[in-house]
Amino acid sequence: MNNGFNSSAIIETLQNVLSNNRDFIALHEPCFKGNEWNYVKECLDSGWVSSSGQYVDRLEKHLGEFTGASYALAVVNGTAALHICLQIAGVSAGDEVLIPALTFVATANAVSYCGAIPHFIDSEEKTLGVDPDKLDRYLNEIAEVKSGVCINKMTGRPIKALVPIHTFGHPADMEPLTELSKRYRLELIEDAAESLGSYYKEQHTGNIGKAAILSFNGNKIITTGGGGAILTNDKSTFVLARHLAAQAKLPHIWSFHHDMVAYNYRMPNINAALGCAQIEQLPGFIKKKRALALRYQEAFARIKGVKIFQEADFARSNYWLNVLLLDEKHTDQRDSLLDLSNKQGIMTRPAWTLMHKLPMYQSCPHMDLNQAESLERRIINLPSSVFL
Amino acid sequence: MNNGFNSSAIIETLQNVLSNNRDFIALHEPCFKGNEWNYVKECLDSGWVSSSGQYVDRLEKHLGEFTGASYALAVVNGTAALHICLQIAGVSAGDEVLIPALTFVATANAVSYCGAIPHFIDSEEKTLGVDPDKLDRYLNEIAEVKSGVCINKMTGRPIKALVPIHTFGHPADMEPLTELSKRYRLELIEDAAESLGSYYKEQHTGNIGKAAILSFNGNKIITTGGGGAILTNDKSTFVLARHLAAQAKLPHIWSFHHDMVAYNYRMPNINAALGCAQIEQLPGFIKKKRALALRYQEAFARIKGVKIFQEADFARSNYWLNVLLLDEKHTDQRDSLLDLSNKQGIMTRPAWTLMHKLPMYQSCPHMDLNQAESLERRIINLPSSVFL
Repeated sequence: MNNGFNSSAIIETLQNVLSNNRDFIALHEPCFKGNEWNYVKECLDSGWVSSSGQYVDRLEKHLGEFTGASYALAVVNGTAALHICLQIAGVSAGDEVLIPALTFVATANAVSYCGAIPHFIDSEEKTLGVDPDKLDRYLNEIAEVKSGVCINKMTGRPIKALVPIHTFGHPADMEPLTELSKRYRLELIEDAAESLGSYYKEQHTGNIGKAAILSFNGNKIITTGGGGAILTNDKSTFVLARHLAAQAKLPHIWSFHHDMVAYNYRMPNINAALGCAQIEQLPGFIKKKRALALRYQEAFARIKGVKIFQEADFARSNYWLNVLLLDEKHTDQRDSLLDLSNKQGIMTRPAWTLMHKLPMYQSCPHMDLNQAESLERRIINLPSSVFL
Repeated sequence: MNNGFNSSAIIETLQNVLSNNRDFIALHEPCFKGNEWNYVKECLDSGWVSSSGQYVDRLEKHLGEFTGASYALAVVNGTAALHICLQIAGVSAGDEVLIPALTFVATANAVSYCGAIPHFIDSEEKTLGVDPDKLDRYLNEIAEVKSGVCINKMTGRPIKALVPIHTFGHPADMEPLTELSKRYRLELIEDAAESLGSYYKEQHTGNIGKAAILSFNGNKIITTGGGGAILTNDKSTFVLARHLAAQAKLPHIWSFHHDMVAYNYRMPNINAALGCAQIEQLPGFIKKKRALALRYQEAFARIKGVKIFQEADFARSNYWLNVLLLDEKHTDQRDSLLDLSNKQGIMTRPAWTLMHKLPMYQSCPHMDLNQAESLERRIINLPSSVFL
């Protein structure tokens, strides 16, 4: 009887919501129904497929207009974007950076690229993002500000930045996190990889900290094949990011002079052409994804032992990936439910393995992570493509 | 009279070789006359534009077949490829890596990403690449092998690897460099970013060391927009490179587990689609580029004070970028010649600023660099697109 938990009813409900004739329903597939081919063809015909070109400029303009950010920089992927933002935030070897344990591994890896150490913090069920109250109590205990620098009293290392993520597209509670970042002199970088089209208190995510990053990987709400962007409202951050992303080459008609160790991180024009077509369709995509979320919510309302995650009252989410939350008492059923649905051709997956459990990050500092651990046991991501 | 140097005659000769109706002749433009549209459209129609897909597999297969390398891995660009190769070669923080001072900045930057220190070595006029005899004498003076590790006696640091580059597509003299790398226990990584289609003693460049890298940036002989590849004949190097390039995710139908700090470096499928069309045309591109090189050689044979660089007797070059070499006594005319030709709509450029002169690398160790410095004063790159 499994304590009243009914896997078959869950699978049946999924099948009803997703009723279509496909043998296999992926977690998130892209939708190319707009000007994708026109723009890509025009890009090929122009010969400008590489690291500069009109589509890169256009995509950056669109991104600024859509998100409200003063500056947008198109780069090769979200990981590269975060690497650059952390570097501009002053993160360097031996520093610590606060990131949620419940995130994709790229967040922690970008910290490592700077030679810094990720310091894992807990999440809350309300947003699936960083729990501000718990972080407040934790920093009060372990951190102190000395000469304008936040020091971890336990390790003696500077804590330079706080990177909240808008998990599966759902905005974290940014107001108290902003207050905390100011009080503790932490640079605030938003990992908005999944939240293009999501709003916190009427403001698009990615506008609150020093800078933010977006991802346009193939599984995101819009895609450029591979790609990402940096958003910022600070001109000097933008100018430095653009310089660092283009091998720090000084502008000159023929001379090759570079003045910093830098990166080959700019988005190719052909990928930007795809992005320009995708962003034109973004408002429609968001509408469809919110409608799907509502269908999931209604369908699962009468299923016992589970619920569909709903945006917090201050948030308007893009519902990038819908989340089925198991009641804690049914978490022993998670893996068999994942196996069952994948066998039935409905792709589902659990949350990422928490960062502090991965071999390369096991020895990094972390606070009590009981909420993240509970969420890890309880989360199942559901198919959320635009056309479902 | 400029000591017999005649800038006008040089410009006129360029105009004769490049005779066409364009207002502006770029240094190297891509040529999309094959299946580019078909493959990119098919890729869009399939929905698989991102980090896995059939075009990535196809491009890797083509690259292996063309170069003779047992394994090829398509990645996001040549810089990323070199970063991974160096890491697999065991280069880590505080190590030194021997690279020519005459190279593009990405070679040195990739060394920096590992926390290592580039150690700059001299080039020779015969190949524009590393001078093996001079390196032999230098290592004899400053290096010793202790317990299987090469140590720089001047700095006390391990020297882990040697990275020759095939400058502007022209093969470096790999046989003595291989012998040196064995004698001094240095991992040999070929920077073949510019030399796809170039052969050293009948063998395609990139097959000699532990691994090699290619670039498919927009200015290269074939392009994927942005992209690169790792070539290797060592299976374990390939397997580890593939793992590191894909965030070290362990294969599983739904679980997200990662076991190393790793990278988001895989080439998107849409870029690979472009690459598949390009590589089909590569033999024709090489033929045309070699024919253009011959036209340059013939046309400049009667111009005093300059010569066109010709491949060494052991090399068959793709002539990626043709090189006009000024006689040493005319190097004071280089900048005015560059200005003049660019003003006339013929794009030319000097060699890269030597690495040891860039602010971030000024304090790195280097040997006497008198040949690289002479070449820096004397080299002017000429337009070399396939369709010229």
